[in-house]
Amino acid sequence: MNENHTEEALKIFSLDGNVPLAQKIADVFGCQLGKSAIKTFSDGEIAINIEESVRGIDTYLIQSTNTPVNDYYMALLIMIDAMKRASAKTINVILPYYAYARQDRTSRPHEPITAKLIANLLVEAGATRVLTLDLHTVQVQGFFDIPVDNLFTTPLFARYYLDRGMQGDEYVVVSPKNSGVQRSRGLAEYLGTTLAIVDQDDDAQDDGYVIGDVEGKTCIMVDDILNTGHTFAKAARLLKEAGAKEVHACASHALFNADAKEVLENAPIEDICVTDSCLTEDTRHPKQATYITCSELIGEAMKRIHENTPMSPLFRLEK
Amino acid sequence: MNENHTEEALKIFSLDGNVPLAQKIADVFGCQLGKSAIKTFSDGEIAINIEESVRGIDTYLIQSTNTPVNDYYMALLIMIDAMKRASAKTINVILPYYAYARQDRTSRPHEPITAKLIANLLVEAGATRVLTLDLHTVQVQGFFDIPVDNLFTTPLFARYYLDRGMQGDEYVVVSPKNSGVQRSRGLAEYLGTTLAIVDQDDDAQDDGYVIGDVEGKTCIMVDDILNTGHTFAKAARLLKEAGAKEVHACASHALFNADAKEVLENAPIEDICVTDSCLTEDTRHPKQATYITCSELIGEAMKRIHENTPMSPLFRLEK
Amino acid sequence: MNENHTEEALKIFSLDGNVPLAQKIADVFGCQLGKSAIKTFSDGEIAINIEESVRGIDTYLIQSTNTPVNDYYMALLIMIDAMKRASAKTINVILPYYAYARQDRTSRPHEPITAKLIANLLVEAGATRVLTLDLHTVQVQGFFDIPVDNLFTTPLFARYYLDRGMQGDEYVVVSPKNSGVQRSRGLAEYLGTTLAIVDQDDDAQDDGYVIGDVEGKTCIMVDDILNTGHTFAKAARLLKEAGAKEVHACASHALFNADAKEVLENAPIEDICVTDSCLTEDTRHPKQATYITCSELIGEAMKRIHENTPMSPLFRLEK
Amino acid sequence: MNENHTEEALKIFSLDGNVPLAQKIADVFGCQLGKSAIKTFSDGEIAINIEESVRGIDTYLIQSTNTPVNDYYMALLIMIDAMKRASAKTINVILPYYAYARQDRTSRPHEPITAKLIANLLVEAGATRVLTLDLHTVQVQGFFDIPVDNLFTTPLFARYYLDRGMQGDEYVVVSPKNSGVQRSRGLAEYLGTTLAIVDQDDDAQDDGYVIGDVEGKTCIMVDDILNTGHTFAKAARLLKEAGAKEVHACASHALFNADAKEVLENAPIEDICVTDSCLTEDTRHPKQATYITCSELIGEAMKRIHENTPMSPLFRLEK
Amino acid sequence: MNENHTEEALKIFSLDGNVPLAQKIADVFGCQLGKSAIKTFSDGEIAINIEESVRGIDTYLIQSTNTPVNDYYMALLIMIDAMKRASAKTINVILPYYAYARQDRTSRPHEPITAKLIANLLVEAGATRVLTLDLHTVQVQGFFDIPVDNLFTTPLFARYYLDRGMQGDEYVVVSPKNSGVQRSRGLAEYLGTTLAIVDQDDDAQDDGYVIGDVEGKTCIMVDDILNTGHTFAKAARLLKEAGAKEVHACASHALFNADAKEVLENAPIEDICVTDSCLTEDTRHPKQATYITCSELIGEAMKRIHENTPMSPLFRLEK
Amino acid sequence: MNENHTEEALKIFSLDGNVPLAQKIADVFGCQLGKSAIKTFSDGEIAINIEESVRGIDTYLIQSTNTPVNDYYMALLIMIDAMKRASAKTINVILPYYAYARQDRTSRPHEPITAKLIANLLVEAGATRVLTLDLHTVQVQGFFDIPVDNLFTTPLFARYYLDRGMQGDEYVVVSPKNSGVQRSRGLAEYLGTTLAIVDQDDDAQDDGYVIGDVEGKTCIMVDDILNTGHTFAKAARLLKEAGAKEVHACASHALFNADAKEVLENAPIEDICVTDSCLTEDTRHPKQATYITCSELIGEAMKRIHENTPMSPLFRLEK
Repeated sequence: MNENHTEEALKIFSLDGNVPLAQKIADVFGCQLGKSAIKTFSDGEIAINIEESVRGIDTYLIQSTNTPVNDYYMALLIMIDAMKRASAKTINVILPYYAYARQDRTSRPHEPITAKLIANLLVEAGATRVLTLDLHTVQVQGFFDIPVDNLFTTPLFARYYLDRGMQGDEYVVVSPKNSGVQRSRGLAEYLGTTLAIVDQDDDAQDDGYVIGDVEGKTCIMVDDILNTGHTFAKAARLLKEAGAKEVHACASHALFNADAKEVLENAPIEDICVTDSCLTEDTRHPKQATYITCSELIGEAMKRIHENTPMSPLFRLEK
Repeated sequence: MNENHTEEALKIFSLDGNVPLAQKIADVFGCQLGKSAIKTFSDGEIAINIEESVRGIDTYLIQSTNTPVNDYYMALLIMIDAMKRASAKTINVILPYYAYARQDRTSRPHEPITAKLIANLLVEAGATRVLTLDLHTVQVQGFFDIPVDNLFTTPLFARYYLDRGMQGDEYVVVSPKNSGVQRSRGLAEYLGTTLAIVDQDDDAQDDGYVIGDVEGKTCIMVDDILNTGHTFAKAARLLKEAGAKEVHACASHALFNADAKEVLENAPIEDICVTDSCLTEDTRHPKQATYITCSELIGEAMKRIHENTPMSPLFRLEK
Repeated sequence: MNENHTEEALKIFSLDGNVPLAQKIADVFGCQLGKSAIKTFSDGEIAINIEESVRGIDTYLIQSTNTPVNDYYMALLIMIDAMKRASAKTINVILPYYAYARQDRTSRPHEPITAKLIANLLVEAGATRVLTLDLHTVQVQGFFDIPVDNLFTTPLFARYYLDRGMQGDEYVVVSPKNSGVQRSRGLAEYLGTTLAIVDQDDDAQDDGYVIGDVEGKTCIMVDDILNTGHTFAKAARLLKEAGAKEVHACASHALFNADAKEVLENAPIEDICVTDSCLTEDTRHPKQATYITCSELIGEAMKRIHENTPMSPLFRLEK
Repeated sequence: MNENHTEEALKIFSLDGNVPLAQKIADVFGCQLGKSAIKTFSDGEIAINIEESVRGIDTYLIQSTNTPVNDYYMALLIMIDAMKRASAKTINVILPYYAYARQDRTSRPHEPITAKLIANLLVEAGATRVLTLDLHTVQVQGFFDIPVDNLFTTPLFARYYLDRGMQGDEYVVVSPKNSGVQRSRGLAEYLGTTLAIVDQDDDAQDDGYVIGDVEGKTCIMVDDILNTGHTFAKAARLLKEAGAKEVHACASHALFNADAKEVLENAPIEDICVTDSCLTEDTRHPKQATYITCSELIGEAMKRIHENTPMSPLFRLEK
Repeated sequence: MNENHTEEALKIFSLDGNVPLAQKIADVFGCQLGKSAIKTFSDGEIAINIEESVRGIDTYLIQSTNTPVNDYYMALLIMIDAMKRASAKTINVILPYYAYARQDRTSRPHEPITAKLIANLLVEAGATRVLTLDLHTVQVQGFFDIPVDNLFTTPLFARYYLDRGMQGDEYVVVSPKNSGVQRSRGLAEYLGTTLAIVDQDDDAQDDGYVIGDVEGKTCIMVDDILNTGHTFAKAARLLKEAGAKEVHACASHALFNADAKEVLENAPIEDICVTDSCLTEDTRHPKQATYITCSELIGEAMKRIHENTPMSPLFRLEK
Repeated sequence: MNENHTEEALKIFSLDGNVPLAQKIADVFGCQLGKSAIKTFSDGEIAINIEESVRGIDTYLIQSTNTPVNDYYMALLIMIDAMKRASAKTINVILPYYAYARQDRTSRPHEPITAKLIANLLVEAGATRVLTLDLHTVQVQGFFDIPVDNLFTTPLFARYYLDRGMQGDEYVVVSPKNSGVQRSRGLAEYLGTTLAIVDQDDDAQDDGYVIGDVEGKTCIMVDDILNTGHTFAKAARLLKEAGAKEVHACASHALFNADAKEVLENAPIEDICVTDSCLTEDTRHPKQATYITCSELIGEAMKRIHENTPMSPLFRLEK
């Protein structure tokens, strides 16, 4: 208690998006989650009460924003407002999954840039720093003028595959769509493989083809957001048609919405490695899913923020 | 086309909270609602596309924010962002019901002031003006530094009761709780009656008493938000116990959540006059409910905003 | 003194509104008021010089803003600007009385919301926190996005009356006008009494009536701002006419302007308990006035701000 | 009236600082001053009500800010807030005299820069443009990021002296203190004279000497602010001692505070030409004072602002 | 044409980055470029004077920001400041080439996001809208909260190749590096071809390989910024090694810095189609360069901004 | 290491404007300059990488902004952005020479106020404090709302001349132009001399005359910025013509641009004392130049900022 007063000046609060992950992160610090109550009234309004003083404290608010995304974001914004008015020293927002990140440009005329709107709302409410994991596009970092640390999942997946001996010429890392090629390239470098791309259209059913050489190789598909599973499923089929020996997949954020479980279980994919950045019911998980935790990565990053030590070692394999 | 080009510079868009009301308001102008699409993806994210140009146009966005309040607010914020980026000249937000307005102060330590947060978010997103109806407390107007017009329902209710001859010494206007006394006083002045107050606690069941004289009189209770119906129901019982002859009620915003229908149907209330500021399913309406429309009031106010004519006549009975 | 350097990092400055109160508050800390000079030139311009370094210091500026209100506010704004440019670490504004707080809404068309303007000016000048006492309406807290602590006088007045045995069924707490009912209710809870309200119009002379039962009881009127005394005087007469045995009064902020002394001395009021939040000349005090100090409450709150300990105990009786 | 509706979209309001000047300016447009009421309560608070609609209107608020400077500034700020909330299209602030302009730097440590504070407050309240006359230092223009037009009085004074044949070698323009040399130089150019400077210290009584040649010449002293008259009086004596034949003086802003009348009447000054930018009682005017009006210059500038025509011709003699 | 004074309310100014392009754009409107002088002092400071009134005018400032990039940006910022202070109604910044756009993320720890800094500086100076051409990443649009229109060069290049019959199975569109794949895909859709990618590292000399099938096909490489030519040159060699029949290239922004001329002339590239968004000396152009103009696209977009007509037709081929 | 952890929380970085001065300043602290790399690409874009962690650190960035001024300012802005995103605790900008400071007002219509623009850009990028030396006009301090410390060179020059016995009646301090008289007056007070002024026009060649008495005296001219040398050269000649015995000169910022060396060497000036605030090549220095260092003054000021001790002693001679 009295031996390290700077440690006491930190409080970690979890909102309702992913309490188990928040608990694991708190464990990294060897501290308890702060006490707060989130209540939903009969009319749908959220009320938040922070049940301990945060006056002059560095606060860390953990909220994952998968479904129901709007409720989770609003709860976060209200909690930030409460922290600000309760005189927290800093308000560090931890978003293991940054929903709306895909709406990062006006793809058609008269569209919003909702990822920027979310950034603006967080800052307006009072956030003083953001820590997030594998943003859909890294440019979203520039949507903020407060410090943003964007952690990468690639080292986690590289460790996963290297531990299983999955590296070298018999493997190929595949981007299951024509965007996000650089995420795949990062993993390919760690595993010492070449790269292939599946060019498919989101909307169409029957199109798509493989760019690059996958024949006789084991493919490892990489994506950031796994929502309905259709992108992975279709890419897997095209890869098999192009002569792939076996198809594996990994994704940072496992939403498993709609009929994802069925779609993925019916697809020729051996294994799907995902992180616990999002919390979903077990009954929605496809049988090939393997969960690895991002709590140590996030917890370690928070420690470095709190102790003002460099973040850079976390961006490399074998931290 | 060529007869009034300033009229053309106006477009009214409805979000998804209360389309029938928006349609009625558009009818006041004799114009169509602007074309826009609101889509909810399988992961709960909302996507908005404005399907006509708003470049240089004065836009009016109508959104009621009753349940599901967070989805309705987020849709509104996203649409404001889209309007801003699509170069709308002004973005006028019409909130027939301003949800979260009751969270307008920190009633206990470490609480947010969510009504202010909402104001901040609307302005940050790009709103240039707000028009709303019967705010829970008028001070919320001061949460904004953009122009805010807060319309009153009291003249509407006064007209309703005067048309039925309900005025004078045999009547008493009652505030069903100890806050909001001034709203009751406004109606009492129109109807030429005295005032009474029911002092009851939100949380307790059995307390409460009537302040003022109601014996042998017909009581007209006034409130802004009718949510679960418990406040009205308990007040009605206390008024009857205190000798009231008959109890009527009116409320600006009819949410009818939880078991409001049952609670109100079991209470000794003859008639409940409400406006159509909020849209709810018919099956949730208690049998005593009488709807009057606020669309003419809001539509007329929007006209005056657009034509730069004074708003003040709308604040009086017999506009 | 020298063992705790964080204590040294605090300096309390008084402006010219209420130096005796500032001195008492400084005494709570056992520290001296900081040295500063406020000079008014022949043309009415105010010049301020801070006569000691505040570089990196937490500063607390105490200013009461009763008459002459505009000079007192301008002096405060200028001092905040000076503190900001002199590199103060934080600028905590202590407003025992927040003038213009009643102008918190546009009661008629085309009116300013001066209470919000004051909030905006304080923040623009550089205030980083505000501590105030019994705001006219609690919603004014939401006019700020910096932390605001609003202390309550109700526990002070409750202690005053309880010490005199003034509690229970023979007493009734009265709101002398139809607004501010909740302030009265707070005191009624502490004293275990019922509530009554005097419904009177600010402008008219002859109207007004009592809502609730006061016959044969000792009335304790509660208000926040005691300016000309007319509200109390008229309410007292109406209460006596309604059969009240005796009338007492308490008010947070004693301005005693115009002919308040005469008006109150001629009214059937036994005792008027007020705090020393405002400084006025002795010759303007009515003979029934009893002053209690708010310096300990404010001083204790400042301590808690400075030491980052919770403020909540101060909101209850018997801190 | 009805032929040019854009003309109607302008309303000029006067605050209480200098109504006669405002009236003269309105006359330049051939329009009436807008209706507004400024009321001071018994507690010193100012209340403002704009008595006609300004929705969508370009508004011009005229306020001179000589004594009582703080009341005049606060009234102006409150009126700006009211205009903003009443949806004025633009809020153009006309400050014939910009009080506090001399506090434009930190001349000693820990001083405010009140001239910048005033700029910040005006903009924060909602001003969208400022028009002012002969700022103490032209750099104050850069304290704003909204457009500021600073008119010069030098052409007015040049016209005054040229009309009297006061030009050429027998004259010398004198800066009565070591700052403001460039204002004197401007007049010297118009009159075709050399320049001299009186180097005197504000605080000391007995120091001071003349830099430059004044022997046998008629001196015309130039200053912006004429407050107590001591600067002019002392400079006049020094000039006479240095052999000046006669001393005249002109100043943009005539405050005539303290014992200015006596001081100036006792000084060897023949004539003191001032503008009507500030309103003071006749009894405070020294007998040598000659008033010329700045209303046409200001009115013409406002016209150019309103009609979007260039301001530059106003900066030259013989507009 | 001459009866509509709103048309006159537009002025186009060119800064010094690319005057010939600005002249061509002005020609699209049939108007003259506004008069302004840009002067560089002996100490390197830039001075700008706008030589005609812009009071109340919609202004359009055209500046290309290729080498010397910092001088060009500073001149632009200074001109924006001048326009703001001279009361321009709107300040529309036209950036045919947005320098620093590649620094759009922190690729290594402790790096700036200079593309965001540029956005912040433009807005802070006073820009109210930005029009740009083929941003390096479309997400940069979200770095702004003012409206940004990002025009695409793909339809221009598609028209160029379709006019030459270069479409269908014998062709393949190639991304010369692993980022920017979606720009290539856009052209591939217009030309009805498949896609290939050259995976090469910016830094290394000898690495790199082709992903996808190019054997016997004519390759059309697409990039946004053509600086030193090394990326195109190396990709062209790798494509030839992989069996490509012929290699063509197109790029939006032709900087031709360093030894680009030599590098490109030595590379196996038949033709390099570029736009005139950047102005460079003729002696730096490689002999294969073919210039097409973007002036009609930009001019047409400015027209639509000024007339408030939709921008969307410009995003498609055959506008 | 462990004896003074607050010292460790400071890092001083030099940009590329004046590294030798930065090194001397770092020596005052006995610390090393922080590691950072500034790289200019072939297209002129600047890239900055901070090569050590600044998380939670008070950073001091030293940049002189003489020629090439725009590159130096842009490098500074980019570095500030990098520091902000790398989570520096404070970003203190040290500008020994503040370029563009002379553009501090709109001297002709439609001109920018570039000195204010620079202030706005620095703050927008993220600067939290500015330390500068002898601003062209002290009012520029008021262009900022963050703390600005403006150090004076006058005590340095006073020390220089007093050490040489140059004081008293045989000397006269001269302002070589009609602005900046107060800088001269400050030195005159230290040296106990009278004042004279040379009234000359920047543009004309043949005009100009001396105001005040210089006959038979040794003149010491004072200016802030020494750019082309023409002002000093012409003033020196006029002073000699007016009978001056000898002419000396001092200037805070020695830019020595254009043909300054030749101009000054041909002028009748004995000695030119300048500070090392700007770095220029030795070959551009006139033979009369004597350099004194401002590094101790700046270094001492930075110490006081870092240790929160008063700055005021630095404003006096004999610190």
